[in-house]
Amino acid sequence: MATGAANRVTVRIMGEDYVLKGKASPEQVQKVGRHVDTVMNEIRQANPSLSTTQVAILAAVNLAADLFRLKEDYEELLALLQDEEAQTTRSEKP
Amino acid sequence: MATGAANRVTVRIMGEDYVLKGKASPEQVQKVGRHVDTVMNEIRQANPSLSTTQVAILAAVNLAADLFRLKEDYEELLALLQDEEAQTTRSEKP
Repeated sequence: MATGAANRVTVRIMGEDYVLKGKASPEQVQKVGRHVDTVMNEIRQANPSLSTTQVAILAAVNLAADLFRLKEDYEELLALLQDEEAQTTRSEKP
Repeated sequence: MATGAANRVTVRIMGEDYVLKGKASPEQVQKVGRHVDTVMNEIRQANPSLSTTQVAILAAVNLAADLFRLKEDYEELLALLQDEEAQTTRSEKP
């Protein structure tokens, strides 16, 4: 599916168009853009007095916090999998 | 460690202070804030003509893309773990 060449995809965030380049599929880039737009709209609705810059920075903070939490979950799961594999190896070679 | 009460933590991003509220520890919130500041500075250095709003939105897009990629990795790992568990169960009850 990946061609190696960078795709150029236009996404609309907070009423402005952004041309994004990357190796991800256009569908994936649109999905990312829609998610950012949703997060920013939620922040703006909860805090109507914030500037667009402040809303965007808070959106970035929320997304970074989600990313860090998921990284912790990923590492926990990786440790569990390594435990399982160690147990499987032991049961295969008793 | 978690007290249940929301912490208020001040983080400095692109030269401006943001007071963030949440249940995460102040250290975790500072780490998130530093990461956002780093990502924004990298984008600004690569694209000096962008406005701070555009830099913040592109930072949010990059972080959302990282989050989606990690979600896929997490789901793959979860499927692997479920496979391992199914094999372990089979080998325990032959």
